[in-house]
Amino acid sequence: MSLVVVGTVAFDAIETPFGKTDKILGGAATFIGLAAGKLNVDAKIVSVIGGDFPEEYLDLLNENGVDTEGIKIIPEGKTFFWAGRYHNDMNTRDTLATELNVLADFDPVLPESYKSADFLMLGNLTPQIQKRVIGQFTQRPRLIVMDTMNYWMNTAWDDLLEVIGMVDVLTINDEEARQLSGEYSLIRAARKIIAMGPEYLVIKKGEHGALLFNRDSVFFAPALPLEEVFDPTGAGDTFAGGFIGYLAKTGDISFENMKRAIIYGSAMASFTVEKFGTEGLQAIRNGELNDRIRQFTDLVQFDIELVD
Amino acid sequence: MSLVVVGTVAFDAIETPFGKTDKILGGAATFIGLAAGKLNVDAKIVSVIGGDFPEEYLDLLNENGVDTEGIKIIPEGKTFFWAGRYHNDMNTRDTLATELNVLADFDPVLPESYKSADFLMLGNLTPQIQKRVIGQFTQRPRLIVMDTMNYWMNTAWDDLLEVIGMVDVLTINDEEARQLSGEYSLIRAARKIIAMGPEYLVIKKGEHGALLFNRDSVFFAPALPLEEVFDPTGAGDTFAGGFIGYLAKTGDISFENMKRAIIYGSAMASFTVEKFGTEGLQAIRNGELNDRIRQFTDLVQFDIELVD
Repeated sequence: MSLVVVGTVAFDAIETPFGKTDKILGGAATFIGLAAGKLNVDAKIVSVIGGDFPEEYLDLLNENGVDTEGIKIIPEGKTFFWAGRYHNDMNTRDTLATELNVLADFDPVLPESYKSADFLMLGNLTPQIQKRVIGQFTQRPRLIVMDTMNYWMNTAWDDLLEVIGMVDVLTINDEEARQLSGEYSLIRAARKIIAMGPEYLVIKKGEHGALLFNRDSVFFAPALPLEEVFDPTGAGDTFAGGFIGYLAKTGDISFENMKRAIIYGSAMASFTVEKFGTEGLQAIRNGELNDRIRQFTDLVQFDIELVD
Repeated sequence: MSLVVVGTVAFDAIETPFGKTDKILGGAATFIGLAAGKLNVDAKIVSVIGGDFPEEYLDLLNENGVDTEGIKIIPEGKTFFWAGRYHNDMNTRDTLATELNVLADFDPVLPESYKSADFLMLGNLTPQIQKRVIGQFTQRPRLIVMDTMNYWMNTAWDDLLEVIGMVDVLTINDEEARQLSGEYSLIRAARKIIAMGPEYLVIKKGEHGALLFNRDSVFFAPALPLEEVFDPTGAGDTFAGGFIGYLAKTGDISFENMKRAIIYGSAMASFTVEKFGTEGLQAIRNGELNDRIRQFTDLVQFDIELVD
């Protein structure tokens, strides 16, 4: 099934305890699109870049099944740029630079062929832009997944709540879930957030895994314990891309299938963190993804005998 | 099978955002013993208390199947006392008081009937005391599980390593695993710690669950997401008591059965954190433990179809 992804296509410059990069390919829509592509789902990206964005990066996206027709190029502009430095624990980071550039005036315009897609992934952007994208569909997508962050809770509360009320699945991290709901317990937070509109909530806890909620049920998937975490950049977006990619591939949006989608997203993200930027995702070879899915099964499966 | 537990029997005074207690029943061996008792495994406690320890607390332990013959009473001494205040996140706390009292000169002496027990749980105490307990067994227990903490890594490194080399299962938290191994990755940390002697390692991550390692495999169990965490005191000891209690009850010390023991320990700990001190553990009614075990199964079970 067809998938539209709106989000950033960007340059990242990353420092970790293991090394640093110059400006490399980054951005939420990039990771989401590449992750979906690894599941043979063609993602149609809606984004904006400047004249400084290398042709080879667009080629890379296209070669991985990503449709870039919806990426507007502003020749005289510069591409969105983020620079960050991770601390030794790899869980915290300092932002060294955020240059919005062409993103500051981003007004998304969907190509005709995008407007009837079945699945829509709203990467983290201003709620106003997310809403404008939804408004351009000729019929509502079967499933809308929305990512957001605490920044919009602090600066665009009303707009944010409006868009949250329009989507089917919200993906946020644990701190954001607490801020959005005003509840510390994630069980209570989930109940309040689902009452705001989305039928499903995914709470991302980074190295501590992810929770999937609907009104009645909760599912938990750990992150795969890894030998080495090299660069966490893009892990959350890869997870989201694997999640919606799996749903779009299977065409099944039941809770049971969303559990599987969570496992696929987690497995995909485990590749991303093993290398800089999109390298880990690009390097996945045939069979490796299935190997990780099996590792997940081994990691959590148990066969219990109830004792009195 | 018979189980000996060495550890503190103590008074705790606890402050949480939800309330505070006077001196109530606490201590590692108390929680471990009560948790094992809930699985109908009689724990034989080795500990020391002062003349100020109420008869009713000893009765409470006995009524829950805990053998207190090995608890030495020093009539002129005072019982070990700990006071702490939890922060709003319930994950961090300040210690307000630690009065060792009779624990300062604790020299464990095992009653004859304890010396041939099949299972031994070494609660967190000085490594020297843990070693002296092992030395009093007439034959080595089938399984020795040891808890410890970072304090002994800082103050009794050589003794600690010696005892770690004598046990089958080590249970520590993630930060302690990192400190003990010098490795940030828990996968690498586990490999190094298992090379120090224990065949199995349990890494406790509090609200983020627990990992079980042997040389070849890893198993992960989440903590049950709860509506409310009221008082985390004793959660780790309850987990340990449920873990070794399940193993002692079933008499099966395979990796597969240790997975189940982890689930039982986690389920048991979920009761402890819902009330102050030992109240949650005492309040477990028939069937409630099995209900939580089923919740664990629902929380993590998935049925994956591999896609290419």
